[in-house]
Amino acid sequence: MTEQPRTRRPGGRSARVAADVHQAVTSLISERGYGNFTVGDIAARAGVADSSIYRRWGSLETLLADVALTRLNAQSPMPDTGSLAGDLRSYAAQVAREITGPDGLALLHLVVALSGTGDQGLQARDEVLAERGRQLQSMLDRAVARGEPAPDALAVLDHVMAPMYIRVLFGLGSLTPEYVDGLVDRLLRPGPEA
Amino acid sequence: MTEQPRTRRPGGRSARVAADVHQAVTSLISERGYGNFTVGDIAARAGVADSSIYRRWGSLETLLADVALTRLNAQSPMPDTGSLAGDLRSYAAQVAREITGPDGLALLHLVVALSGTGDQGLQARDEVLAERGRQLQSMLDRAVARGEPAPDALAVLDHVMAPMYIRVLFGLGSLTPEYVDGLVDRLLRPGPEA
Repeated sequence: MTEQPRTRRPGGRSARVAADVHQAVTSLISERGYGNFTVGDIAARAGVADSSIYRRWGSLETLLADVALTRLNAQSPMPDTGSLAGDLRSYAAQVAREITGPDGLALLHLVVALSGTGDQGLQARDEVLAERGRQLQSMLDRAVARGEPAPDALAVLDHVMAPMYIRVLFGLGSLTPEYVDGLVDRLLRPGPEA
Repeated sequence: MTEQPRTRRPGGRSARVAADVHQAVTSLISERGYGNFTVGDIAARAGVADSSIYRRWGSLETLLADVALTRLNAQSPMPDTGSLAGDLRSYAAQVAREITGPDGLALLHLVVALSGTGDQGLQARDEVLAERGRQLQSMLDRAVARGEPAPDALAVLDHVMAPMYIRVLFGLGSLTPEYVDGLVDRLLRPGPEA
């Protein structure tokens, strides 16, 4: 196979290969779960050579992180509604849709599993989380610039994202709009100490 | 394979086998991660026959759930301090110690991974969670019986357990006593609507 890895054009062969490989990864995670397939399995499913995958991504962990990052970014553009409450409600609703969608649990499992795969997995996971954190921080920065009181990004993780993630990971109940809005409202509720 | 030196345990041969098998599972999860070992690997590590494991536990998933349940129960007796704030602070501190301990991440990965393994895994996971839920509910019931206002068990999961679980699963910061106490205090803070 003679590819030119440094000349990627959107819509060209390289982009199609990437899309096929991403789709193969998502399917394999859904069907078998993380840890139960190899680069060879992905290559066979996507109809490419193993060497193409190694040349482009370097390792299974890097490929998995790329899949997770691409999906998180494509599916979660950050809302800009003019108020922090509106932004957070909209963002939380997006995350809820994403993690309760057809591949949502597989995506969450992937991010969790990357923690258990040594340095490459940890680095890959950290890139996924850092990107999510940057998106969230820009939303909070806009609120502060408007003069709104805003929690820090870790408080959003703790009290809006974490409950949704854990409920989906543990299979506990559904993420209704009322539940999701309630998480945001509770976070933004002023405390006794101001 | 390196044989671990055996220490004598009370309860006869059957209990020793169970303890050795549990230890083998915990080690394998820590070393390889869930999904990357078989019943045969566990048997070899524990020095027992595969058939002994299948006869006693029936399946890998059931064995894994048994390990998780035993560890959660042995390590988390529910506190009874006389106040809900005291009980929840003590409980949260126990959970924080457990999930940040040497096998804590492996244990969390195990509970998460059981969700992705089909019916047996789901049932096993649900048993683990139901036992945890019963322990927690009994603590909340005692508070209500004393006349204290108490959140429901899911609110404790959402705002005390979930943030700790996700921070450990995602490798974000450490669970300091101040952080853990703060999660409990925030949960018990009276809301504006009473």
